[in-house]
Amino acid sequence: MVGGGQLARMTHQAAIALGQSLRVLAVSGDEPAPLVAPGVDLGSHTDLAALRAFAAHCDVVTLDHEHVPTEHLRALVADGVTVHPGPDALIHAQDKLVMRRRLADLGVPVPAFAPVTSVGDVAEFGWPCVLKAVRGGYDGRGVWLLRGPDDALVASLLERGTPLMVERFVTMRRELAALVARSPFGQGACWPVVETVQSDGICVEVIAPAPGLSTSTADEAQRLALRVAEELGVVGVLAVELFETDDGLVVNELAMRPHNSGHWTIDGSVTSQFEQHIRAVLDYPLGATDPVAPVTVMANVLGATQPDVMAIDERLHHLFARFGQAKIHLYGKAERPGRKIGHVTVVGTELAPVRRVASLAAHWLATGQWADGYDIHEGDHQ
Amino acid sequence: MVGGGQLARMTHQAAIALGQSLRVLAVSGDEPAPLVAPGVDLGSHTDLAALRAFAAHCDVVTLDHEHVPTEHLRALVADGVTVHPGPDALIHAQDKLVMRRRLADLGVPVPAFAPVTSVGDVAEFGWPCVLKAVRGGYDGRGVWLLRGPDDALVASLLERGTPLMVERFVTMRRELAALVARSPFGQGACWPVVETVQSDGICVEVIAPAPGLSTSTADEAQRLALRVAEELGVVGVLAVELFETDDGLVVNELAMRPHNSGHWTIDGSVTSQFEQHIRAVLDYPLGATDPVAPVTVMANVLGATQPDVMAIDERLHHLFARFGQAKIHLYGKAERPGRKIGHVTVVGTELAPVRRVASLAAHWLATGQWADGYDIHEGDHQ
Repeated sequence: MVGGGQLARMTHQAAIALGQSLRVLAVSGDEPAPLVAPGVDLGSHTDLAALRAFAAHCDVVTLDHEHVPTEHLRALVADGVTVHPGPDALIHAQDKLVMRRRLADLGVPVPAFAPVTSVGDVAEFGWPCVLKAVRGGYDGRGVWLLRGPDDALVASLLERGTPLMVERFVTMRRELAALVARSPFGQGACWPVVETVQSDGICVEVIAPAPGLSTSTADEAQRLALRVAEELGVVGVLAVELFETDDGLVVNELAMRPHNSGHWTIDGSVTSQFEQHIRAVLDYPLGATDPVAPVTVMANVLGATQPDVMAIDERLHHLFARFGQAKIHLYGKAERPGRKIGHVTVVGTELAPVRRVASLAAHWLATGQWADGYDIHEGDHQ
Repeated sequence: MVGGGQLARMTHQAAIALGQSLRVLAVSGDEPAPLVAPGVDLGSHTDLAALRAFAAHCDVVTLDHEHVPTEHLRALVADGVTVHPGPDALIHAQDKLVMRRRLADLGVPVPAFAPVTSVGDVAEFGWPCVLKAVRGGYDGRGVWLLRGPDDALVASLLERGTPLMVERFVTMRRELAALVARSPFGQGACWPVVETVQSDGICVEVIAPAPGLSTSTADEAQRLALRVAEELGVVGVLAVELFETDDGLVVNELAMRPHNSGHWTIDGSVTSQFEQHIRAVLDYPLGATDPVAPVTVMANVLGATQPDVMAIDERLHHLFARFGQAKIHLYGKAERPGRKIGHVTVVGTELAPVRRVASLAAHWLATGQWADGYDIHEGDHQ
């Protein structure tokens, strides 16, 4: 796996059960995956020589992120390396304009969009709109909501050489994600559709399955994701981020790797997205995706913003004392305010208490403070 | 963790989620844990210098097996190293005669037993009896059922210097195991009592919870195991192997580490025995031990006995195609006939089909053959 982040870390964990050990290409030995996996090459994912040397040790090369230049992946494929997902698929997760055009061609619902090469392109498109960097954005970076003209912003981005596009602002009820996997053989598997809750552009909570989602909408989302996986030739896990609107589903983004919206599957599904990604890229038959309980809620743990918070180890100690059923996943990352350093998953039967415990636990781990309104006896029946 | 076997391998997997990486002292780099963990010292667990050098990198030293000489553990403790379980507890899992005497003193039910220092000691005890090596036995090794005199065996063992004891042969209904964990703080936690099924002295199957076990017997087994953990000062996981007899429970063996009878907890319990062992030895509060479903069955995968069996990777491929719900855990070990190379776990609601799938899956992985009487449509409703 190219990239040594938390996705590679959790993929290694899953690989262990399958009798494997993940090989990782990481920039630094203190990234999440190199901290826990022995087969690590140090090198940059933008350095073709490093990628080639790494690929020489691998049966299949797969990716922890979208930042490997497409032309490098094409060079590896030309060398005879098996890369999953391949560059022709991955480009749709790397380049938002390519993705929008392709999905529109396929008749998949997307917001109205247009390329931006001048300040005038935005004015012509009209407001409110969403200005996006075509490449390289994540967690809300590279996305600007424009409620009216902001020529200075557009001009400055264009001046810096940022390739831009603009989209119609979508009024939505909520965000959903449809997670599927596809093998080279063409087998597909989908997990229940989830609701994702964002704050400042960062996913903070995932509820599986999405509460109150009609069977027909859930089916539509799953079919849409499986179709996109097949049409684009995705191999591995594909996450389709969706807006639920009054007029139906609209595709927001695609990711072709294990995705934050699927972390709940580690504790909440028979087969986790990490094991499934390995099965898919190695062309094993895919595993069962049934949930293990009626409700699973995953909450991201963000790095503390207060400088004087107690150490993470101490926070963990208190959390374990309070919530024995909360499943903790820490990534070994140094804490920085707002940085995703781990997640908490709670599995159960009733949405409200499960969600409350997940949220309390993540808030506690992120701040060393119990959330406002917390009662020490809450969740005792869990 | 001293020892690089599958228990260390699965403990490392659990450590990753807690933001840790297990350090391992292993004899060789191709053991199960060194294959997947980066923090490995190579050295022997019988070499005090190697143990000391290893302990210098560790906050707490714990154990994958019972084969570290007790005096070496005492030397580490004298050096100021925190060792969990400590030598005064561990001796009861290393020396069967010490264990029998201590449990008898505590009033815990054990078979009648006697030390053996001469052939006459066995004759005096009478038959049928079970002759045991006091130290070093495992998986049925070091245990001999004597239905009548076998002076030659006893004499030859004594001549080789094997410390021996003899026990009354217990007529039992079945074998059970009570798995608990205890922290230095004194917190205890117990999983549901399981039934273990042996073949040729090797555990082949574990059913959780033990089918048809009365609540009172289950309570008694759990209380007994928690009491033994406390009286012996165990820190970490303690497995108490039990015989269920017409006259109640009798203790067979103790293990003070994650144990084969608890592998089902990875997929079948909120907190696995591996995570719990880490929590206990690091003195974190223990996790919830609730089962995630009504029935979990774990079946060991033993190395193939036929030389011409298809490769394990191919066996895995076919297994995944047939049983998408089976959870596989392979240890990265070279295959030798009868060697434990992995396990399969199936979680569900009905005992018979869950047990059948686990058994079919393990048999297939061990032999590349479906078991006698297998119907290709079996388990389709799973």
